[in-house]
Amino acid sequence: MATIIDGKAVGDAILEEIRAQVATSSAAGQVVPGLAVVLVGDRKDSATYVRMKKKACEKVGIRTVSVTLPADISFDELLKHIDTLNTDATVHGILVQLPLPAHLNEELVLNRIVPEKDVDGLHPMNLASLAIKSKLPYMVACTPAGCLELLDRYKIPIEGKRAVVLGRSRIVGIPMSLLLLERNATVTVCHSKSQNLEAVVREADIVIACCGQAQMVKASWLKHGAAVIDVGINAIDDATKKAGYRLVGDVDFEQAKEVAGAITPVPGGVGPMTIAMLLTNTLLAQQRSLK
Amino acid sequence: MATIIDGKAVGDAILEEIRAQVATSSAAGQVVPGLAVVLVGDRKDSATYVRMKKKACEKVGIRTVSVTLPADISFDELLKHIDTLNTDATVHGILVQLPLPAHLNEELVLNRIVPEKDVDGLHPMNLASLAIKSKLPYMVACTPAGCLELLDRYKIPIEGKRAVVLGRSRIVGIPMSLLLLERNATVTVCHSKSQNLEAVVREADIVIACCGQAQMVKASWLKHGAAVIDVGINAIDDATKKAGYRLVGDVDFEQAKEVAGAITPVPGGVGPMTIAMLLTNTLLAQQRSLK
Repeated sequence: MATIIDGKAVGDAILEEIRAQVATSSAAGQVVPGLAVVLVGDRKDSATYVRMKKKACEKVGIRTVSVTLPADISFDELLKHIDTLNTDATVHGILVQLPLPAHLNEELVLNRIVPEKDVDGLHPMNLASLAIKSKLPYMVACTPAGCLELLDRYKIPIEGKRAVVLGRSRIVGIPMSLLLLERNATVTVCHSKSQNLEAVVREADIVIACCGQAQMVKASWLKHGAAVIDVGINAIDDATKKAGYRLVGDVDFEQAKEVAGAITPVPGGVGPMTIAMLLTNTLLAQQRSLK
Repeated sequence: MATIIDGKAVGDAILEEIRAQVATSSAAGQVVPGLAVVLVGDRKDSATYVRMKKKACEKVGIRTVSVTLPADISFDELLKHIDTLNTDATVHGILVQLPLPAHLNEELVLNRIVPEKDVDGLHPMNLASLAIKSKLPYMVACTPAGCLELLDRYKIPIEGKRAVVLGRSRIVGIPMSLLLLERNATVTVCHSKSQNLEAVVREADIVIACCGQAQMVKASWLKHGAAVIDVGINAIDDATKKAGYRLVGDVDFEQAKEVAGAITPVPGGVGPMTIAMLLTNTLLAQQRSLK
């Protein structure tokens, strides 16, 4: 049976490392790291994510600045808020909770954040830096960075290995594939138009499932001993649960764990890592701002 | 035997299309498309490339502005020249011939060109736009764009096919893989640290060889009927030639053409396409500037 990769434990360990560093930094009289969290509208799921991120910040001593804006805010008004945060020296990271209401152009909003404060790592300059082995400082997108951190902390070799990334989103699939490439894996990116998906996945020593399809990846798709990182979070009906549903990943975990060498559960795998990497990036931005 | 993909003929056809469009644009009283070519130092190969590009511009009616600078120019001085071109309304495209002398930071120089005039498609914002399915106008890197154009003009299907890109450079490998992904291929990127390269290449319906290793890809590596695009240009000793050498690609062409379904020769394959796409981008930049 596979090693179950404990994202909660690794995430907690990282938070503890950050807490210690923030304490040292504060003791040395440095400015407290600050994260601005911009929430537009009143989506319940977005509010939950924002709350979780703020709680994690509190735990480690990162100051948060909440910018809560009405769903009907104009594009120009939103940009003004971002510009204010861009020039605020006490704010080191800016996070705009996605998705934004439909009338706001997400791409242009994200592009407005100065790359130095883009702790989500979604600015084009940060994404491109991944692609070009940039010598400039940059921020790595949180979820892919979290996946890589899990592989590293579980000492799963990457160089020369075959990695298959299922999904090509801006937030996960593309930066993930570039990160694995930078670490010298041979990387294949699959998506909804890929043919013979099972055969392609079966070649992989490392599988990153980020396709947003509940339990799509079956045990029979996996090479024996493969490392499986499951980024998916999907709600499926479950009458035995009080809420009437439960959360599952993009991998059929119960079966897959019998074939894989190592695998992340959902929840408790990649999820906690994403927040840990967000705080890591915020601390990094604060440290860079001191130079 | 494979169809030999005639890059020279396709390139010439594109130049003729551009010539006609420039003529129409000029007849309508529009500003003539202008390309600035910045050459730093006196490398012979760079001077040759610049001369070829200028000659092609002349052929189609694109105006060129030559900026020839000494090898010991300072970084700040070079940036001043770029800034001047950035704001010159008669210059629609800016090309900085690479490589630059070692004391100049290529990345920072390329980043200085405004993305709208980056006809080489190497600015991070343009590269990132490929990765995020940007809705903003952007420029596609010339060599990968040329490879794709060859596949399209020879009606080689891409969607759902397996493509293997050998090489992960900023100029070719990475943008090529993103372009193929955008066109719904299942894309694998290989490099010097990849293992079992032959087996990986043998899976491919489309092979893009851009690894810079003379005749590395052998016939035995290819799936029968695969489309092979050879980006390599390598000089190898040849006593039968007056110059003492000849140019070959990254693919062992003579053998490979017996197995492939379609293949580009070197020279006369991708090479002429790169210049054609540069002029295509320059015309595109001029047309966008009119809006």
